[in-house]
Amino acid sequence: MDDIDLQEFLKFLSFASISTDPAYRGEVQKCGEWVLEKFTKLGLEAKLHATAGHPIVTARTPPDPKKRTLLIYGHYDVQPVDPLNLWEGPPFEPQQKGGKVFARGATDNKGQIFGHILGVQKALQQGPLPVNVIFLVEGEEECGSGNLTPFVEANQEFLKCDCVLLSDTGMIAPRTPTISYGLRGLCALEVTLRGPTKDLHSGEFGGAVVNPALVLARLLTTLHDSHGKIAVEGFYDQVAPIQPWEKEAWSKLPLNEKELLHTTGAPQLGGEAGFEPLERIWGRPTIEINGLTSGYQGRGTKTVLPSKASAKLTCRLVPNQTPQEILQKVSDHLRKHCPPTVELQIELGDGGLPYLIDPQSPYIVAAVKALKHIFPDRETAFTRSGGSIPVIAELKRILNVDVVMVGWALPDSNIHSPNENFPVENLEYGLRFNREFLKFMSQP
Amino acid sequence: MDDIDLQEFLKFLSFASISTDPAYRGEVQKCGEWVLEKFTKLGLEAKLHATAGHPIVTARTPPDPKKRTLLIYGHYDVQPVDPLNLWEGPPFEPQQKGGKVFARGATDNKGQIFGHILGVQKALQQGPLPVNVIFLVEGEEECGSGNLTPFVEANQEFLKCDCVLLSDTGMIAPRTPTISYGLRGLCALEVTLRGPTKDLHSGEFGGAVVNPALVLARLLTTLHDSHGKIAVEGFYDQVAPIQPWEKEAWSKLPLNEKELLHTTGAPQLGGEAGFEPLERIWGRPTIEINGLTSGYQGRGTKTVLPSKASAKLTCRLVPNQTPQEILQKVSDHLRKHCPPTVELQIELGDGGLPYLIDPQSPYIVAAVKALKHIFPDRETAFTRSGGSIPVIAELKRILNVDVVMVGWALPDSNIHSPNENFPVENLEYGLRFNREFLKFMSQP
Repeated sequence: MDDIDLQEFLKFLSFASISTDPAYRGEVQKCGEWVLEKFTKLGLEAKLHATAGHPIVTARTPPDPKKRTLLIYGHYDVQPVDPLNLWEGPPFEPQQKGGKVFARGATDNKGQIFGHILGVQKALQQGPLPVNVIFLVEGEEECGSGNLTPFVEANQEFLKCDCVLLSDTGMIAPRTPTISYGLRGLCALEVTLRGPTKDLHSGEFGGAVVNPALVLARLLTTLHDSHGKIAVEGFYDQVAPIQPWEKEAWSKLPLNEKELLHTTGAPQLGGEAGFEPLERIWGRPTIEINGLTSGYQGRGTKTVLPSKASAKLTCRLVPNQTPQEILQKVSDHLRKHCPPTVELQIELGDGGLPYLIDPQSPYIVAAVKALKHIFPDRETAFTRSGGSIPVIAELKRILNVDVVMVGWALPDSNIHSPNENFPVENLEYGLRFNREFLKFMSQP
Repeated sequence: MDDIDLQEFLKFLSFASISTDPAYRGEVQKCGEWVLEKFTKLGLEAKLHATAGHPIVTARTPPDPKKRTLLIYGHYDVQPVDPLNLWEGPPFEPQQKGGKVFARGATDNKGQIFGHILGVQKALQQGPLPVNVIFLVEGEEECGSGNLTPFVEANQEFLKCDCVLLSDTGMIAPRTPTISYGLRGLCALEVTLRGPTKDLHSGEFGGAVVNPALVLARLLTTLHDSHGKIAVEGFYDQVAPIQPWEKEAWSKLPLNEKELLHTTGAPQLGGEAGFEPLERIWGRPTIEINGLTSGYQGRGTKTVLPSKASAKLTCRLVPNQTPQEILQKVSDHLRKHCPPTVELQIELGDGGLPYLIDPQSPYIVAAVKALKHIFPDRETAFTRSGGSIPVIAELKRILNVDVVMVGWALPDSNIHSPNENFPVENLEYGLRFNREFLKFMSQP
């Protein structure tokens, strides 16, 4: 690992660039400026673009019209850190342990975008690159990429390319090259039920006034049937079935029930009846409760009848569902099932389309060759991802090119969770893959 | 009001004596010491008794074996203040507005116990009292009175009396004398469901792992049927029916549906089918959710599958239910309905028996006479209370005397809620009632 300046990576991880919480706006800005400075030091033409939210950083090699152009996408913002008490160290003071670096963003996405940057850096040290490279690094991926689409729309000429490459997905196991050819989409909504105008004494009023927390529990219970199927009318209407070849290929992957139980620590798996665990994650849509809030949450007992109760919900979508369609259907369902004893408020949040690419497309083939160069003994695994990168479908739509996803996150990298971590060897694999991909991509 | 030193009352309200939260231990102690000092200044024999929790204050007039003895009970501790943002002023910086004093504890119980104290103070200024008076003022009523019962058991000789008097209940309307002859009991439990060992990325794992927040919603939904009846097996087994004379008397009280809707601001009333709103509050048991907690509760979206979800529950009990019986039945129900996809943890909390007294007993009659003296044009209303004062049943059991409850809280006093308040005139009524009750109690 002697040719990687790990100190520089640790510095990158030290910014608390939490994009969803306005309190961290300054840290996000400083992190974006650090990325800008890194690109500038590489000799690239780099710019920081202010947006209505957090800045977008672009950088490019001198454009040569005779060469193909690669657009590398990544993000420098990170998820919130709570519950903070479950972290073994401060999330923004990176610690090295057992060949891994622990910090919020270590994998998602700072470690992976840093692999791209180091790969291009190494290639530049060997002379002019075989392809033009454009970097597009945003600061709002974890809060919906709201300003990226307009930016890409407005800068289509600058961002014109033959292929988009990104590393924001996972490997199915350590040292197992993995290409992700599908992503789930996402839509978010927050449901708030209001009953009495203020928290009431549960003795003085309890029994005569309906408890909004109880109504919320009943309402959330209507979202699924007893077999784990989503009970929202028409929810599955547009769902593209999982293909037979996919079912067969996935059943051979080392991501089985035992592995999932080990990784998650859950007492049992669960979910939609009639599908294997991996099928449920990669090929089936979900509605999850991300958070519940109502009444008293401190220590001890407080005998209130809460005035309101709320739930944060997100749906993961599969082709050919759209956020608009699903938000409408889920909202309709909630309105239909909410009793008149409470007032229902639905706040719609972020959304992103699902994405699917043909695993036989030419730049996927180039990526497989680059991976073979690094892992000569290993077959590349083709996977879909249960996660969402809303910008992927948007980049494909606006730039009209394929998006190649080669990921380096491990099942125990704890992305979005306490003690997120990234193996230092994956940073090196990322570096080497990126360097090689530039060559294979330039070949006919 | 010129003979009431309101400054002294405001000082009493300025202590943040929140007993349920260990962070306020010092404030509770200081408030207890202030009560001790007040009694000492009245010339009473006063003591502060340390307990395993918060101190108990006692005070007494010189015991005269020829006189009857009155034990006055109250508490100087208060409920937590959250949600703080709904308060119009700081909860422990009392404000006067429209003839009312706004502060946490203004009504429950500082205003009411202060009425007792001032009544005795005024009577003492007129000479020796016609009865012996003992004050028993605790600092743990809002967290279950856990140390009071052992204290009373250990000090039965000192606390020996003919009758217990307290003001910790309500008036059905302003200037309407009200005696409460029944209280609901209480028991509390906290349910925590644990799924994965940490919060998971809802994309990477959602679909294969059961969401504890969703399981909690389903579990809470099993507690009631669709008619608002509690669906826990055997829950109503010991419930004493509401008497026909009670149903008739309550139907004439000005506490109707319209009034309850106005006071609570709820869009509609609700609850157990087949009972009037007041019957549901005073004569029927409940299970309420006091708080819900799971996953991300900050601003924006965080796409986690929470590792755990918890609910704080309290049941209000009616004669002849017991906390032990109900905690057992509710725990059994939860265990029976909890699926094996999560681990269930039940933490049992505070409890207290319900209480019922014969409205024709002699000291109730004395209280009615004292109230008639203050409100010559008004009939005393006989009510039960939906709230719980766990110590009442304990005082009756150990001291073997009747407990007379004359309350001064109004329906809009916001006890346990933001902007708790107490009318200054009710402080004066409390003063006058206590002064008069000493006389009527001493008469054969």
